[in-house]
Amino acid sequence: MPGTAPATYGYFGPVGTFTHQALLTLVTDEQAELVPYATVGLALQAVRDGEVTSALVPIENSVEGGVSATLDTLTYGDPLVITGEVLLPVQFGLYARPGTTLADVHVVLTHPHAAAQCRSWLAAHLPAAEVVERGSTAAAAAEVARPGSDVDAAVCAAVAGELNGLDALASGIADNPDAVTRFVLVSRPGPVGEPTGADKTTMVLFMRENHPGALLEILEQFASRGVDLCRIESRPTRRTLGDYCFSIDAEGHVADARLAEAMMGLYRTCAEVVFLGSYPRADHEAADVRPGTANADYAAAASWLERLKG
Amino acid sequence: MPGTAPATYGYFGPVGTFTHQALLTLVTDEQAELVPYATVGLALQAVRDGEVTSALVPIENSVEGGVSATLDTLTYGDPLVITGEVLLPVQFGLYARPGTTLADVHVVLTHPHAAAQCRSWLAAHLPAAEVVERGSTAAAAAEVARPGSDVDAAVCAAVAGELNGLDALASGIADNPDAVTRFVLVSRPGPVGEPTGADKTTMVLFMRENHPGALLEILEQFASRGVDLCRIESRPTRRTLGDYCFSIDAEGHVADARLAEAMMGLYRTCAEVVFLGSYPRADHEAADVRPGTANADYAAAASWLERLKG
Amino acid sequence: MPGTAPATYGYFGPVGTFTHQALLTLVTDEQAELVPYATVGLALQAVRDGEVTSALVPIENSVEGGVSATLDTLTYGDPLVITGEVLLPVQFGLYARPGTTLADVHVVLTHPHAAAQCRSWLAAHLPAAEVVERGSTAAAAAEVARPGSDVDAAVCAAVAGELNGLDALASGIADNPDAVTRFVLVSRPGPVGEPTGADKTTMVLFMRENHPGALLEILEQFASRGVDLCRIESRPTRRTLGDYCFSIDAEGHVADARLAEAMMGLYRTCAEVVFLGSYPRADHEAADVRPGTANADYAAAASWLERLKG
Amino acid sequence: MPGTAPATYGYFGPVGTFTHQALLTLVTDEQAELVPYATVGLALQAVRDGEVTSALVPIENSVEGGVSATLDTLTYGDPLVITGEVLLPVQFGLYARPGTTLADVHVVLTHPHAAAQCRSWLAAHLPAAEVVERGSTAAAAAEVARPGSDVDAAVCAAVAGELNGLDALASGIADNPDAVTRFVLVSRPGPVGEPTGADKTTMVLFMRENHPGALLEILEQFASRGVDLCRIESRPTRRTLGDYCFSIDAEGHVADARLAEAMMGLYRTCAEVVFLGSYPRADHEAADVRPGTANADYAAAASWLERLKG
Repeated sequence: MPGTAPATYGYFGPVGTFTHQALLTLVTDEQAELVPYATVGLALQAVRDGEVTSALVPIENSVEGGVSATLDTLTYGDPLVITGEVLLPVQFGLYARPGTTLADVHVVLTHPHAAAQCRSWLAAHLPAAEVVERGSTAAAAAEVARPGSDVDAAVCAAVAGELNGLDALASGIADNPDAVTRFVLVSRPGPVGEPTGADKTTMVLFMRENHPGALLEILEQFASRGVDLCRIESRPTRRTLGDYCFSIDAEGHVADARLAEAMMGLYRTCAEVVFLGSYPRADHEAADVRPGTANADYAAAASWLERLKG
Repeated sequence: MPGTAPATYGYFGPVGTFTHQALLTLVTDEQAELVPYATVGLALQAVRDGEVTSALVPIENSVEGGVSATLDTLTYGDPLVITGEVLLPVQFGLYARPGTTLADVHVVLTHPHAAAQCRSWLAAHLPAAEVVERGSTAAAAAEVARPGSDVDAAVCAAVAGELNGLDALASGIADNPDAVTRFVLVSRPGPVGEPTGADKTTMVLFMRENHPGALLEILEQFASRGVDLCRIESRPTRRTLGDYCFSIDAEGHVADARLAEAMMGLYRTCAEVVFLGSYPRADHEAADVRPGTANADYAAAASWLERLKG
Repeated sequence: MPGTAPATYGYFGPVGTFTHQALLTLVTDEQAELVPYATVGLALQAVRDGEVTSALVPIENSVEGGVSATLDTLTYGDPLVITGEVLLPVQFGLYARPGTTLADVHVVLTHPHAAAQCRSWLAAHLPAAEVVERGSTAAAAAEVARPGSDVDAAVCAAVAGELNGLDALASGIADNPDAVTRFVLVSRPGPVGEPTGADKTTMVLFMRENHPGALLEILEQFASRGVDLCRIESRPTRRTLGDYCFSIDAEGHVADARLAEAMMGLYRTCAEVVFLGSYPRADHEAADVRPGTANADYAAAASWLERLKG
Repeated sequence: MPGTAPATYGYFGPVGTFTHQALLTLVTDEQAELVPYATVGLALQAVRDGEVTSALVPIENSVEGGVSATLDTLTYGDPLVITGEVLLPVQFGLYARPGTTLADVHVVLTHPHAAAQCRSWLAAHLPAAEVVERGSTAAAAAEVARPGSDVDAAVCAAVAGELNGLDALASGIADNPDAVTRFVLVSRPGPVGEPTGADKTTMVLFMRENHPGALLEILEQFASRGVDLCRIESRPTRRTLGDYCFSIDAEGHVADARLAEAMMGLYRTCAEVVFLGSYPRADHEAADVRPGTANADYAAAASWLERLKG
């Protein structure tokens, strides 16, 4: 379309992070511009400031940290919404400059979390190597690729190895081969996308008071409408550690009557509800719509009630 | 209004029952016709058949029985609704033909429940008297008044004594002076009356299946909308004793958003909901509308949700 | 056993009531003495006073009333416990003096509830007959049998017809052929009987305060231990109509760990718990013991906890 | 005590991290040996291997990451328990080599989370400075202190600045001055410490199946015993992202009857309960023991039940 600027995507960088790798699975437009930011906070601020159209940041089970920052930055400040999610298997490889062999590796550079997740493999295959930390696996790969570098190899994502011109000495070296990290694509608020039948809605709930049973009451707002949760985390609020809010992913879309009614129930009974978007599930798993909870059931109940009033 | 027939009221008779006494507190139109029926079932059938405009029947804590019949007759068959309720203190007296003294009383006639509720008084004041049962305290009073009767006194309501021309040998003789019986006025369905702010709604809920936790789920439909219950009874359905339904009085009116939403939730998740009317509470106790559950709160939540959708 | 007095059983009489009929299904000892009492209250008082060993009274869905009296008399006063229950199909017949034919029947005597339950049959087969009420179907049958009686037939239980030397003009005449009434056998407290695997426990729960959600909290005490309820009724307390207690039958026996823990939980959180006995279910339906709620599971959990403490 | 080796404490290092600073508030024995580990996983493995007596690691709201690693490493593998916790206000300062002034600072080194949390201060006071990431704020401080370093200042904890001989150019520079991080002291299992009346218990719960309402059932196990939660997080299990477990901090001590009973209830109904210790709360806030939930109430309920059995 002439005159239309291609989309720009920020992400939690630098180039070669797992977030970068996840973003490449999402963006198919070759003209799209991908912009790395040093922190989740900076990536999301760039969305707020209109520097980028949207940004991808880790939200769950991240290898490189940032989850707390993501949750908090989304919660506080100018409104943002999630418009999509990406699940990425966490596959680490050992990457080195071309010509390096395993026997040459004496110093390994990586992020502390990555080191932790590959501990068994490193102990078995490089028992004598020194493991040195960097702020991200991508930074580790870049350092290995730097001419004159005195480190021999990096534990990092495939994308980081390839972007830095490194060769894989080994791949699939994580102790838990099934680990998956979750990322969310974040934009400024606009019309919510259409429901797909396999959606998720993210929100943050602040209690009116920290009374006993408050969490139970929240969950009953969901349960009484037949809405399941996919994720829940209590989070200290920006006040003191004793005050909690709840970060929640619920099954379904704000256009689904069951979720809409649950959200209105929460709006009425919580101090504040921060809506963070309805978006398609990355796993495409259709919602488990229990009997009596489909939109048609809600409409039928409303008709019945009107008839009762006579 | 010329040409308008006065209302006709059926009641659980005969003349002089507590139900009759309760009806007299309700009907101020002297032209209204009051029609006794021998059973609750017959009184309610007369409403269904259009013989009477409405009927008063006992529904809770009745002295003369009939509660089960009331609940079941309302539940099954052509629709009926409750349009009002009456609370009546259960005050028994000992009534005899004029001229009789306490020392003359050797045989006392009454309904078994009334005998039970005045047991202490009878044991203290008429230890030697024989207590003989009748189908109602009103029938007992009528028998005492019958010329040639061989019984000496009746334990009955004041109305029965007076209607039968008897004198009170004693009054307020029930062991529990605070006992109260509840009656409901039943009509064929029509437009539901306006909410007064102190209303009650009666319904019967049939489960989809008798699974464990079914009752808990029902109560969560009420609790998640901030609706309290005034009465609950499990009732065997007309199938087998193992299958239960629940007869419930909830606080509030079907025009209250919180109760309307709870009822729609029940309609969606129960096998059947039998609506038995919204009507003013006899005790005029205003509903306890908790924060976030007023109609304005519901409207505000709906506006919020629309704004979210963008 | 020489020298041992045979058991004596009180029941809600007179001779020939459904309660009497139910008692005959329970008592196999021909020497046992069966004593009718005019009211449920008198029958239970006779147990309290030691006049009889135990008494059978209706507790649910009674044809002849008495249920409220049973619940209240058990709840207040010296302790009593239920030791067994009987379920009796409610089968009415039309009984008359030998030689009477259906065409001879102009006046039918019965209890109002019985009249209500046979209304369709009476309308179809005796449309012109007058129906006159008595305090019990048994009293109706006795009146029909009385020499010189001016009534023609009684609607009553088979036992009442037979005991009074009447013939059945028709049987099975109730509109709902599946109706069942429940009776309980009540004694003074003693060691609770052994659990059978198909037991029921009856109790009355008084709230500390009538706060919203109080009933939900009670039900969670049961649900969190995997205990199902068979019956629940809110009952006005002996104070005012606004204050409720709950009369409950729960599945299981006080010797079952899951029910014992639920009861202790209720004891701790209610104002008062009146225990009314653990006894075998009349329907012999084995408890639905969900995974993790058997006695062995409770014992295993206790062992685990001890090990944790180190 | 002659011959007794002093305690050794591992911690999430390197020297100068916030974890190190937190540990210094806990350890008063000057002879105690403090051992930094590059990752949470390595610190906890050192406890499992007996290299150190215990280890301090971040568990909530960490500045430097590690929370996911802490939760997962505690959950899986040989048993570990938490024996204490520390709350530390997150106070960042800007540290530089002696003689440096704010005007000299062109390159700032820090951990990405720290950069995010001081973004406003840095934008206001060092708008032109480049922010470069390191794996921890401590590593950043060490790099600044290294002779020949080409970076000018570090954003780090006071302890890191002091240990590295740096001067504070500014302190208290975090955007949110009330932020607090929580750390836990972890040991191999042994006898659980005595309850203090202000305790916390940590556990991980695995569901039998991911059925709807599973979380509600878990919370009812706590609520029905009057136990409040301090923290809850759903965590993907080590299987697939769809399967969740719950990491929970509950108020109270395993020696408190209410918590013990809740834990036994969870043990019976969950697939697995991983107990991670009962320990004094860092904030010394006494438990909110609601009526009926004290140890004496539990004992009274048990006595009552025994009496009932007769």
